[in-house]
Amino acid sequence: MITSTSNQQVKNLVQLQKKGKARREQGQFIVEGIRMFAEIPDAWIQQVYVSETFLLNNPDKLFGKTYEVLADKVFEYVSDTKTPQGVLGVVKMPAYTKKDLLTAADGRAPLVLLLENIQDPGNLGTMFRSGEGAGVTGIIMDKTTVDIFHPKTVRSTMGGIYRVPFIIVDDIKEGIRLLQEHRIRIYAAHLKESCCYDEPDYTTGCGFLIGNEGNGLTDETAEMADQYIRIPMGGKLESLNASVAASLLMYEANRQRRNCV
Amino acid sequence: MITSTSNQQVKNLVQLQKKGKARREQGQFIVEGIRMFAEIPDAWIQQVYVSETFLLNNPDKLFGKTYEVLADKVFEYVSDTKTPQGVLGVVKMPAYTKKDLLTAADGRAPLVLLLENIQDPGNLGTMFRSGEGAGVTGIIMDKTTVDIFHPKTVRSTMGGIYRVPFIIVDDIKEGIRLLQEHRIRIYAAHLKESCCYDEPDYTTGCGFLIGNEGNGLTDETAEMADQYIRIPMGGKLESLNASVAASLLMYEANRQRRNCV
Repeated sequence: MITSTSNQQVKNLVQLQKKGKARREQGQFIVEGIRMFAEIPDAWIQQVYVSETFLLNNPDKLFGKTYEVLADKVFEYVSDTKTPQGVLGVVKMPAYTKKDLLTAADGRAPLVLLLENIQDPGNLGTMFRSGEGAGVTGIIMDKTTVDIFHPKTVRSTMGGIYRVPFIIVDDIKEGIRLLQEHRIRIYAAHLKESCCYDEPDYTTGCGFLIGNEGNGLTDETAEMADQYIRIPMGGKLESLNASVAASLLMYEANRQRRNCV
Repeated sequence: MITSTSNQQVKNLVQLQKKGKARREQGQFIVEGIRMFAEIPDAWIQQVYVSETFLLNNPDKLFGKTYEVLADKVFEYVSDTKTPQGVLGVVKMPAYTKKDLLTAADGRAPLVLLLENIQDPGNLGTMFRSGEGAGVTGIIMDKTTVDIFHPKTVRSTMGGIYRVPFIIVDDIKEGIRLLQEHRIRIYAAHLKESCCYDEPDYTTGCGFLIGNEGNGLTDETAEMADQYIRIPMGGKLESLNASVAASLLMYEANRQRRNCV
Protein backbone atom coordinates (compact mmCIF):
# COMPACT_ATOMS: atom_id res chain seq x y z
CA MET A 1 0.00 0.00 0.00
CA ILE A 2 1.18 3.48 -0.85
CA THR A 3 0.94 5.71 2.22
CA SER A 4 2.92 8.79 1.17
CA THR A 5 1.95 11.65 -1.11
CA SER A 6 5.59 12.00 -2.10
CA ASN A 7 5.53 8.57 -3.74
CA GLN A 8 6.51 8.84 -7.40
CA GLN A 9 3.35 7.18 -8.73
CA VAL A 10 1.20 9.47 -6.61
CA LYS A 11 3.02 12.50 -7.93
CA ASN A 12 2.42 11.33 -11.46
CA LEU A 13 -1.29 10.79 -10.83
CA VAL A 14 -1.57 14.38 -9.62
CA GLN A 15 0.23 15.55 -12.76
CA LEU A 16 -2.20 13.58 -14.94
CA GLN A 17 -5.16 15.08 -13.07
CA LYS A 18 -3.94 18.66 -13.26
CA LYS A 19 -1.79 19.10 -16.35
CA GLY A 20 -2.95 18.72 -19.92
CA LYS A 21 0.70 18.72 -20.94
CA ALA A 22 1.49 15.71 -18.73
CA ARG A 23 -1.50 13.89 -20.21
CA ARG A 24 -0.41 14.62 -23.77
CA GLU A 25 3.22 13.65 -23.13
CA GLN A 26 2.23 10.35 -21.58
CA GLY A 27 -0.74 9.72 -23.87
CA GLN A 28 -2.76 8.87 -20.78
CA PHE A 29 -5.58 10.31 -18.71
CA ILE A 30 -7.43 9.45 -15.51
CA VAL A 31 -10.94 8.11 -15.08
CA GLU A 32 -12.49 8.25 -11.62
CA GLY A 33 -15.55 6.74 -10.00
CA ILE A 34 -17.27 3.36 -9.86
CA ARG A 35 -19.48 3.70 -12.89
CA MET A 36 -16.98 5.41 -15.17
CA PHE A 37 -14.34 2.85 -14.11
CA ALA A 38 -16.62 -0.09 -14.85
CA GLU A 39 -17.16 1.13 -18.41
CA ILE A 40 -13.50 1.59 -19.40
CA PRO A 41 -12.79 -0.56 -22.48
CA ASP A 42 -10.40 -3.33 -21.42
CA ALA A 43 -7.76 -2.45 -23.99
CA TRP A 44 -7.56 1.14 -22.71
CA ILE A 45 -6.66 0.40 -19.05
CA GLN A 46 -3.04 0.91 -18.04
CA GLN A 47 -3.20 0.96 -14.25
CA VAL A 48 -5.82 0.79 -11.50
CA TYR A 49 -5.65 2.51 -8.11
CA VAL A 50 -8.04 1.95 -5.23
CA SER A 51 -8.36 3.37 -1.73
CA GLU A 52 -7.96 1.04 1.23
CA THR A 53 -11.63 1.45 2.16
CA PHE A 54 -12.84 0.84 -1.38
CA LEU A 55 -10.89 -2.41 -1.53
CA LEU A 56 -12.47 -3.58 1.73
CA ASN A 57 -16.02 -2.77 0.66
CA ASN A 58 -16.05 -3.27 -3.11
CA PRO A 59 -13.51 -5.90 -4.17
CA ASP A 60 -16.07 -7.19 -6.71
CA LYS A 61 -16.08 -3.83 -8.49
CA LEU A 62 -12.48 -4.30 -9.64
CA PHE A 63 -13.45 -7.09 -12.06
CA GLY A 64 -10.29 -9.07 -11.36
CA LYS A 65 -8.02 -6.30 -12.59
CA THR A 66 -4.52 -5.78 -11.16
CA TYR A 67 -4.43 -2.79 -8.84
CA GLU A 68 -2.36 -0.70 -6.44
CA VAL A 69 -3.79 0.30 -3.06
CA LEU A 70 -3.55 3.88 -1.81
CA ALA A 71 -4.12 4.87 1.81
CA ASP A 72 -7.47 6.69 2.01
CA LYS A 73 -5.77 10.03 2.62
CA VAL A 74 -3.47 9.52 -0.35
CA PHE A 75 -6.44 8.66 -2.57
CA GLU A 76 -8.19 11.83 -1.43
CA TYR A 77 -5.04 13.78 -2.24
CA VAL A 78 -4.98 12.38 -5.77
CA SER A 79 -8.70 12.63 -6.47
CA ASP A 80 -10.22 15.43 -8.51
CA THR A 81 -13.56 15.18 -6.68
CA LYS A 82 -14.69 16.41 -3.27
CA THR A 83 -16.05 13.02 -2.23
CA PRO A 84 -13.84 10.45 -3.96
CA GLN A 85 -15.42 7.07 -4.67
CA GLY A 86 -12.09 5.32 -4.15
CA VAL A 87 -11.31 3.87 -7.57
CA LEU A 88 -9.51 5.30 -10.58
CA GLY A 89 -8.00 4.02 -13.78
CA VAL A 90 -5.08 5.38 -15.75
CA VAL A 91 -6.28 5.07 -19.30
CA LYS A 92 -4.57 5.17 -22.69
CA MET A 93 -5.83 7.90 -25.01
CA PRO A 94 -7.68 6.42 -27.98
CA ALA A 95 -6.45 7.14 -31.51
CA TYR A 96 -9.19 7.39 -34.10
CA THR A 97 -8.80 7.75 -37.83
CA LYS A 98 -10.85 10.22 -39.83
CA LYS A 99 -12.71 7.25 -41.27
CA ASP A 100 -13.82 6.17 -37.79
CA LEU A 101 -15.72 9.44 -37.44
CA LEU A 102 -17.76 8.88 -40.55
CA THR A 103 -18.56 5.20 -40.19
CA ALA A 104 -21.19 3.77 -37.89
CA ALA A 105 -21.50 0.03 -37.24
CA ASP A 106 -25.16 0.16 -38.22
CA GLY A 107 -24.42 1.91 -41.51
CA ARG A 108 -26.24 5.15 -40.68
CA ALA A 109 -25.24 8.33 -42.48
CA PRO A 110 -22.42 10.40 -40.93
CA LEU A 111 -23.55 12.83 -38.22
CA VAL A 112 -20.62 14.89 -36.95
CA LEU A 113 -20.29 17.61 -34.34
CA LEU A 114 -17.60 20.23 -35.09
CA LEU A 115 -16.46 22.29 -32.12
CA GLU A 116 -14.56 25.57 -32.21
CA ASN A 117 -13.09 27.01 -29.03
CA ILE A 118 -15.48 25.47 -26.50
CA GLN A 119 -14.17 26.56 -23.10
CA ASP A 120 -16.28 24.89 -20.44
CA PRO A 121 -15.31 21.29 -19.56
CA GLY A 122 -18.88 20.52 -18.48
CA ASN A 123 -20.24 21.74 -21.81
CA LEU A 124 -17.78 19.64 -23.79
CA GLY A 125 -18.51 16.54 -21.73
CA THR A 126 -22.25 17.09 -22.05
CA MET A 127 -21.90 17.31 -25.84
CA PHE A 128 -20.26 13.88 -25.86
CA ARG A 129 -23.05 12.55 -23.65
CA SER A 130 -25.84 13.98 -25.81
CA GLY A 131 -23.88 13.03 -28.92
CA GLU A 132 -23.83 9.39 -27.94
CA GLY A 133 -27.55 9.56 -27.16
CA ALA A 134 -28.43 11.22 -30.45
CA GLY A 135 -26.20 8.86 -32.43
CA VAL A 136 -23.43 11.09 -33.76
CA THR A 137 -20.81 9.15 -35.69
CA GLY A 138 -17.99 11.39 -34.46
CA ILE A 139 -16.85 14.68 -32.94
CA ILE A 140 -14.12 16.96 -34.32
CA MET A 141 -12.63 19.57 -31.97
CA ASP A 142 -10.07 22.26 -32.65
CA LYS A 143 -7.10 22.58 -30.33
CA THR A 144 -8.40 25.76 -28.70
CA THR A 145 -11.30 23.71 -27.34
CA VAL A 146 -10.89 22.69 -23.71
CA ASP A 147 -9.08 19.37 -23.15
CA ILE A 148 -11.39 16.39 -23.63
CA PHE A 149 -9.15 14.50 -21.15
CA HIS A 150 -9.68 17.09 -18.37
CA PRO A 151 -11.12 15.20 -15.36
CA LYS A 152 -14.31 17.29 -15.29
CA THR A 153 -14.87 16.78 -19.03
CA VAL A 154 -14.30 13.05 -18.77
CA ARG A 155 -16.80 12.87 -15.89
CA SER A 156 -19.45 14.89 -17.76
CA THR A 157 -19.32 12.56 -20.78
CA MET A 158 -20.89 9.81 -18.60
CA GLY A 159 -19.00 7.26 -20.67
CA GLY A 160 -19.53 8.92 -24.05
CA ILE A 161 -15.77 9.45 -24.23
CA TYR A 162 -15.36 5.67 -24.60
CA ARG A 163 -17.88 5.29 -27.38
CA VAL A 164 -17.98 8.43 -29.52
CA PRO A 165 -15.01 8.59 -31.94
CA PHE A 166 -13.25 11.96 -31.93
CA ILE A 167 -10.22 13.77 -33.31
CA ILE A 168 -8.53 17.04 -32.45
CA VAL A 169 -7.45 19.26 -35.34
CA ASP A 170 -5.25 22.37 -35.31
CA ASP A 171 -7.94 24.44 -36.96
CA ILE A 172 -11.61 23.49 -37.24
CA LYS A 173 -11.50 24.52 -40.90
CA GLU A 174 -9.51 21.32 -41.53
CA GLY A 175 -12.41 19.36 -40.08
CA ILE A 176 -14.91 21.22 -42.25
CA ARG A 177 -12.85 20.54 -45.38
CA LEU A 178 -12.55 16.85 -44.51
CA LEU A 179 -16.31 16.50 -44.23
CA GLN A 180 -17.04 18.55 -47.33
CA GLU A 181 -14.69 16.30 -49.32
CA HIS A 182 -16.97 13.45 -48.29
CA ARG A 183 -20.02 15.42 -49.44
CA ILE A 184 -21.20 15.98 -45.91
CA ARG A 185 -23.21 19.15 -45.59
CA ILE A 186 -22.09 21.58 -42.89
CA TYR A 187 -24.63 23.57 -40.86
CA ALA A 188 -23.62 26.48 -38.65
CA ALA A 189 -25.80 27.64 -35.78
CA HIS A 190 -26.09 31.37 -36.39
CA LEU A 191 -28.25 33.83 -34.49
CA LYS A 192 -29.14 36.12 -37.36
CA GLU A 193 -30.24 33.49 -39.79
CA SER A 194 -33.84 33.01 -40.85
CA CYS A 195 -33.74 29.28 -41.62
CA CYS A 196 -35.07 27.42 -38.62
CA TYR A 197 -32.95 24.47 -37.47
CA ASP A 198 -35.72 21.98 -38.13
CA GLU A 199 -36.20 22.93 -41.78
CA PRO A 200 -33.20 21.26 -43.51
CA ASP A 201 -33.09 17.54 -44.23
CA TYR A 202 -30.53 15.88 -41.97
CA THR A 203 -31.17 12.31 -43.08
CA THR A 204 -28.09 12.30 -45.29
CA GLY A 205 -24.56 13.02 -44.01
CA CYS A 206 -24.36 16.24 -42.02
CA GLY A 207 -22.13 18.17 -39.66
CA PHE A 208 -23.07 20.79 -37.06
CA LEU A 209 -20.68 23.62 -36.23
CA ILE A 210 -20.79 24.95 -32.66
CA GLY A 211 -18.68 27.89 -31.51
CA ASN A 212 -17.36 29.44 -28.33
CA GLU A 213 -19.78 30.00 -25.43
CA GLY A 214 -19.38 33.76 -25.34
CA ASN A 215 -18.57 34.69 -28.91
CA GLY A 216 -19.99 31.97 -31.12
CA LEU A 217 -18.19 30.89 -34.28
CA THR A 218 -15.44 33.00 -35.84
CA ASP A 219 -16.54 34.66 -39.08
CA GLU A 220 -14.06 32.69 -41.20
CA THR A 221 -15.34 29.41 -39.84
CA ALA A 222 -19.00 30.34 -40.17
CA GLU A 223 -18.41 31.37 -43.78
CA MET A 224 -17.29 27.86 -44.68
CA ALA A 225 -20.66 26.38 -43.72
CA ASP A 226 -22.98 25.24 -46.49
CA GLN A 227 -25.98 26.59 -44.62
CA TYR A 228 -26.77 28.73 -41.60
CA ILE A 229 -29.51 27.63 -39.24
CA ARG A 230 -31.16 29.30 -36.28
CA ILE A 231 -32.70 27.97 -33.10
CA PRO A 232 -35.68 30.22 -32.41
CA MET A 233 -35.60 32.01 -29.07
CA GLY A 234 -38.40 33.78 -27.26
CA GLY A 235 -37.97 36.37 -24.55
CA LYS A 236 -34.94 38.63 -24.49
CA LEU A 237 -32.42 35.83 -24.57
CA GLU A 238 -29.31 36.31 -26.71
CA SER A 239 -28.24 32.69 -26.94
CA LEU A 240 -28.68 29.22 -25.54
CA ASN A 241 -26.09 27.27 -23.59
CA ALA A 242 -23.66 25.75 -26.12
CA SER A 243 -24.25 22.16 -25.04
CA VAL A 244 -28.03 22.69 -25.14
CA ALA A 245 -27.80 24.17 -28.65
CA ALA A 246 -25.63 21.24 -29.82
CA SER A 247 -28.05 18.76 -28.25
CA LEU A 248 -31.07 20.35 -29.94
CA LEU A 249 -29.39 20.11 -33.35
CA MET A 250 -28.17 16.54 -32.88
CA TYR A 251 -31.58 15.42 -31.61
CA GLU A 252 -33.35 17.12 -34.52
CA ALA A 253 -31.20 14.96 -36.82
CA ASN A 254 -32.02 11.96 -34.63
CA ARG A 255 -35.75 12.76 -34.83
CA GLN A 256 -35.64 12.92 -38.61
CA ARG A 257 -33.67 9.69 -38.84
CA ARG A 258 -35.84 7.44 -36.69
CA ASN A 259 -39.32 6.16 -37.38
CA CYS A 260 -40.67 6.99 -34.03
CA VAL A 261 -43.44 9.40 -35.01
CA MET B 1 -15.62 54.34 -0.47
CA ILE B 2 -15.65 51.17 1.61
CA THR B 3 -12.10 49.94 2.13
CA SER B 4 -12.49 47.34 4.85
CA THR B 5 -13.83 43.80 4.63
CA SER B 6 -15.09 44.15 8.19
CA ASN B 7 -17.57 46.81 7.11
CA GLN B 8 -21.11 45.76 7.99
CA GLN B 9 -22.45 46.10 4.44
CA VAL B 10 -19.58 44.03 3.09
CA LYS B 11 -20.24 41.33 5.65
CA ASN B 12 -23.87 41.24 4.61
CA LEU B 13 -22.97 40.95 0.92
CA VAL B 14 -20.84 37.92 1.72
CA GLN B 15 -23.75 36.41 3.65
CA LEU B 16 -26.06 36.98 0.69
CA GLN B 17 -23.55 35.34 -1.65
CA LYS B 18 -22.92 32.31 0.51
CA LYS B 19 -26.01 31.58 2.57
CA GLY B 20 -29.39 30.59 1.22
CA LYS B 21 -30.78 31.26 4.70
CA ALA B 22 -29.57 34.88 4.68
CA ARG B 23 -31.12 35.35 1.23
CA ARG B 24 -34.45 33.95 2.35
CA GLU B 25 -34.53 35.96 5.60
CA GLN B 26 -33.80 39.20 3.78
CA GLY B 27 -35.81 38.36 0.66
CA GLN B 28 -32.84 39.50 -1.40
CA PHE B 29 -30.15 38.02 -3.62
CA ILE B 30 -27.10 39.25 -5.51
CA VAL B 31 -26.64 39.69 -9.23
CA GLU B 32 -23.10 40.16 -10.55
CA GLY B 33 -21.60 41.20 -13.86
CA ILE B 34 -22.17 43.90 -16.45
CA ARG B 35 -24.74 42.15 -18.60
CA MET B 36 -26.74 40.58 -15.78
CA PHE B 37 -26.70 43.93 -13.95
CA ALA B 38 -27.93 45.82 -17.00
CA GLU B 39 -30.96 43.54 -17.30
CA ILE B 40 -32.21 43.79 -13.69
CA PRO B 41 -35.81 45.07 -13.74
CA ASP B 42 -35.79 48.55 -12.19
CA ALA B 43 -38.32 47.69 -9.51
CA TRP B 44 -36.17 44.82 -8.26
CA ILE B 45 -32.98 46.77 -7.48
CA GLN B 46 -32.30 47.54 -3.82
CA GLN B 47 -28.61 48.55 -3.82
CA VAL B 48 -25.75 48.80 -6.26
CA TYR B 49 -22.07 48.22 -5.48
CA VAL B 50 -19.17 48.93 -7.82
CA SER B 51 -15.42 48.55 -7.60
CA GLU B 52 -13.25 51.64 -7.77
CA THR B 53 -11.82 50.58 -11.14
CA PHE B 54 -15.25 49.80 -12.61
CA LEU B 55 -16.46 53.28 -11.66
CA LEU B 56 -13.47 54.87 -13.38
CA ASN B 57 -13.87 52.89 -16.59
CA ASN B 58 -17.60 52.27 -16.91
CA PRO B 59 -19.62 55.04 -15.25
CA ASP B 60 -22.09 54.84 -18.18
CA LYS B 61 -22.90 51.21 -17.30
CA LEU B 62 -24.55 52.28 -14.04
CA PHE B 63 -27.50 53.89 -15.84
CA GLY B 64 -27.70 56.73 -13.34
CA LYS B 65 -28.42 54.42 -10.42
CA THR B 66 -27.31 55.28 -6.88
CA TYR B 67 -24.30 53.21 -5.84
CA GLU B 68 -21.70 52.51 -3.19
CA VAL B 69 -18.03 52.19 -4.14
CA LEU B 70 -15.91 49.32 -2.86
CA ALA B 71 -12.12 49.29 -2.99
CA ASP B 72 -11.07 46.78 -5.68
CA LYS B 73 -9.80 44.33 -3.08
CA VAL B 74 -13.03 44.55 -1.14
CA PHE B 75 -15.04 43.93 -4.30
CA GLU B 76 -12.91 40.86 -5.04
CA TYR B 77 -13.55 39.67 -1.50
CA VAL B 78 -17.29 39.97 -1.97
CA SER B 79 -17.46 38.56 -5.49
CA ASP B 80 -18.51 34.99 -6.22
CA THR B 81 -16.44 34.87 -9.43
CA LYS B 82 -12.73 34.42 -10.05
CA THR B 83 -12.46 37.49 -12.26
CA PRO B 84 -15.05 39.95 -10.93
CA GLN B 85 -16.44 42.45 -13.43
CA GLY B 86 -16.79 45.09 -10.71
CA VAL B 87 -20.53 45.64 -10.51
CA LEU B 88 -23.24 43.93 -8.49
CA GLY B 89 -26.81 44.59 -7.53
CA VAL B 90 -28.68 43.54 -4.41
CA VAL B 91 -32.02 42.50 -5.79
CA LYS B 92 -35.44 41.87 -4.24
CA MET B 93 -36.79 38.37 -4.77
CA PRO B 94 -39.81 38.42 -7.07
CA ALA B 95 -43.14 37.08 -5.84
CA TYR B 96 -45.25 35.40 -8.49
CA THR B 97 -48.77 34.09 -8.16
CA LYS B 98 -49.79 30.72 -9.49
CA LYS B 99 -51.73 32.56 -12.16
CA ASP B 100 -48.55 34.26 -13.41
CA LEU B 101 -47.14 30.85 -14.30
CA LEU B 102 -50.03 29.95 -16.52
CA THR B 103 -50.56 33.24 -18.30
CA ALA B 104 -48.44 34.52 -21.14
CA ALA B 105 -48.74 38.07 -22.48
CA ASP B 106 -49.25 36.72 -26.00
CA GLY B 107 -52.03 34.36 -24.90
CA ARG B 108 -50.17 31.15 -25.71
CA ALA B 109 -51.17 27.95 -23.92
CA PRO B 110 -49.47 27.24 -20.58
CA LEU B 111 -46.10 25.46 -20.86
CA VAL B 112 -44.68 24.69 -17.43
CA LEU B 113 -41.51 23.01 -16.24
CA LEU B 114 -41.85 21.09 -12.95
CA LEU B 115 -38.59 20.33 -11.14
CA GLU B 116 -38.04 17.79 -8.40
CA ASN B 117 -34.78 17.73 -6.46
CA ILE B 118 -32.49 19.24 -9.11
CA GLN B 119 -29.10 19.54 -7.41
CA ASP B 120 -26.74 21.30 -9.80
CA PRO B 121 -26.95 25.12 -9.86
CA GLY B 122 -25.70 25.19 -13.46
CA ASN B 123 -28.43 22.76 -14.55
CA LEU B 124 -31.16 24.79 -12.85
CA GLY B 125 -29.92 28.05 -14.36
CA THR B 126 -29.64 26.48 -17.80
CA MET B 127 -33.25 25.29 -17.55
CA PHE B 128 -34.37 28.88 -16.94
CA ARG B 129 -32.27 29.99 -19.91
CA SER B 130 -33.64 27.34 -22.27
CA GLY B 131 -37.09 27.83 -20.78
CA GLU B 132 -37.12 31.49 -21.72
CA GLY B 133 -35.90 30.59 -25.21
CA ALA B 134 -38.51 27.88 -25.71
CA GLY B 135 -41.29 30.06 -24.32
CA VAL B 136 -42.30 28.37 -21.07
CA THR B 137 -44.96 30.29 -19.18
CA GLY B 138 -43.51 29.30 -15.81
CA ILE B 139 -41.33 27.01 -13.71
CA ILE B 140 -42.37 25.22 -10.51
CA MET B 141 -39.62 23.88 -8.26
CA ASP B 142 -39.85 21.87 -5.07
CA LYS B 143 -37.90 23.02 -2.04
CA THR B 144 -35.36 20.19 -2.32
CA THR B 145 -34.24 21.72 -5.62
CA VAL B 146 -31.07 23.81 -5.38
CA ASP B 147 -31.61 27.50 -4.57
CA ILE B 148 -32.59 29.51 -7.65
CA PHE B 149 -30.98 32.53 -5.94
CA HIS B 150 -27.56 30.80 -5.61
CA PRO B 151 -25.00 33.03 -7.43
CA LYS B 152 -24.03 30.29 -9.87
CA THR B 153 -27.67 29.54 -10.70
CA VAL B 154 -28.47 33.21 -11.21
CA ARG B 155 -25.47 33.54 -13.54
CA SER B 156 -26.42 30.46 -15.57
CA THR B 157 -29.94 31.77 -16.22
CA MET B 158 -28.40 34.51 -18.42
CA GLY B 159 -31.28 36.77 -17.42
CA GLY B 160 -34.01 34.13 -17.59
CA ILE B 161 -34.48 34.59 -13.83
CA TYR B 162 -35.89 38.08 -14.52
CA ARG B 163 -38.34 36.98 -17.15
CA VAL B 164 -39.57 33.44 -16.44
CA PRO B 165 -42.19 33.39 -13.64
CA PHE B 166 -41.49 30.74 -11.01
CA ILE B 167 -42.69 29.47 -7.64
CA ILE B 168 -41.21 27.15 -5.06
CA VAL B 169 -43.52 24.56 -3.50
CA ASP B 170 -42.94 22.28 -0.51
CA ASP B 171 -43.66 19.19 -2.57
CA ILE B 172 -43.74 19.04 -6.37
CA LYS B 173 -46.99 17.06 -6.12
CA GLU B 174 -48.67 20.36 -5.14
CA GLY B 175 -47.47 21.82 -8.41
CA ILE B 176 -48.76 18.84 -10.37
CA ARG B 177 -52.18 19.12 -8.71
CA LEU B 178 -52.35 22.84 -9.42
CA LEU B 179 -51.74 22.26 -13.11
CA GLN B 180 -54.09 19.31 -13.35
CA GLU B 181 -56.85 21.43 -11.80
CA HIS B 182 -56.34 23.74 -14.76
CA ARG B 183 -56.58 20.80 -17.18
CA ILE B 184 -52.92 20.99 -18.00
CA ARG B 185 -51.57 17.62 -19.03
CA ILE B 186 -48.45 16.44 -17.16
CA TYR B 187 -45.70 14.52 -18.94
CA ALA B 188 -42.92 12.74 -17.08
CA ALA B 189 -39.63 11.92 -18.72
CA HIS B 190 -39.20 8.23 -17.97
CA LEU B 191 -36.47 5.95 -19.24
CA LYS B 192 -38.53 2.78 -19.56
CA GLU B 193 -41.43 4.24 -21.45
CA SER B 194 -42.15 3.40 -25.06
CA CYS B 195 -43.87 6.66 -26.07
CA CYS B 196 -41.35 8.88 -27.77
CA TYR B 197 -41.25 12.47 -26.52
CA ASP B 198 -42.23 13.86 -29.91
CA GLU B 199 -45.42 11.82 -30.24
CA PRO B 200 -47.85 13.66 -27.92
CA ASP B 201 -49.53 16.91 -28.89
CA TYR B 202 -48.09 19.76 -26.83
CA THR B 203 -50.01 22.58 -28.50
CA THR B 204 -52.51 22.76 -25.62
CA GLY B 205 -51.48 23.38 -22.00
CA CYS B 206 -48.76 21.02 -20.82
CA GLY B 207 -46.25 20.51 -18.05
CA PHE B 208 -42.95 18.59 -18.10
CA LEU B 209 -41.69 16.83 -14.98
CA ILE B 210 -37.91 16.59 -14.58
CA GLY B 211 -36.29 14.77 -11.67
CA ASN B 212 -32.99 14.58 -9.84
CA GLU B 213 -29.79 14.24 -11.90
CA GLY B 214 -28.75 10.90 -10.42
CA ASN B 215 -32.04 9.26 -9.54
CA GLY B 216 -34.70 10.76 -11.76
CA LEU B 217 -38.22 11.33 -10.44
CA THR B 218 -39.48 9.67 -7.29
CA ASP B 219 -42.01 6.93 -8.00
CA GLU B 220 -44.84 8.80 -6.25
CA THR B 221 -44.26 11.87 -8.36
CA ALA B 222 -43.92 9.96 -11.62
CA GLU B 223 -47.18 8.13 -10.88
CA MET B 224 -49.10 11.40 -10.84
CA ALA B 225 -48.16 12.16 -14.45
CA ASP B 226 -50.83 11.82 -17.11
CA GLN B 227 -48.35 10.31 -19.53
CA TYR B 228 -44.80 8.99 -19.56
CA ILE B 229 -42.52 9.96 -22.41
CA ARG B 230 -39.05 8.84 -23.40
CA ILE B 231 -36.17 10.56 -25.13
CA PRO B 232 -34.58 7.88 -27.34
CA MET B 233 -30.91 7.21 -26.63
CA GLY B 234 -28.39 5.36 -28.72
CA GLY B 235 -25.17 3.83 -27.47
CA LYS B 236 -24.89 2.58 -23.92
CA LEU B 237 -25.98 5.80 -22.31
CA GLU B 238 -28.26 5.57 -19.28
CA SER B 239 -29.55 9.12 -19.30
CA LEU B 240 -29.06 12.62 -20.65
CA ASN B 241 -28.00 15.64 -18.65
CA ALA B 242 -31.11 16.95 -16.84
CA SER B 243 -30.95 20.43 -18.39
CA VAL B 244 -30.46 18.92 -21.86
CA ALA B 245 -33.46 16.62 -21.36
CA ALA B 246 -35.60 19.54 -20.15
CA SER B 247 -34.48 21.66 -23.11
CA LEU B 248 -35.32 18.93 -25.62
CA LEU B 249 -38.85 18.60 -24.21
CA MET B 250 -39.48 22.35 -24.05
CA TYR B 251 -38.17 22.85 -27.58
CA GLU B 252 -40.30 20.00 -28.89
CA ALA B 253 -43.32 21.89 -27.54
CA ASN B 254 -41.91 25.07 -29.10
CA ARG B 255 -41.47 23.30 -32.44
CA GLN B 256 -45.07 22.10 -32.44
CA ARG B 257 -46.36 25.52 -31.46
CA ARG B 258 -44.68 27.62 -34.12
CA ASN B 259 -45.27 27.66 -37.85
CA CYS B 260 -41.69 27.43 -38.79
CA VAL B 261 -41.71 24.18 -40.77
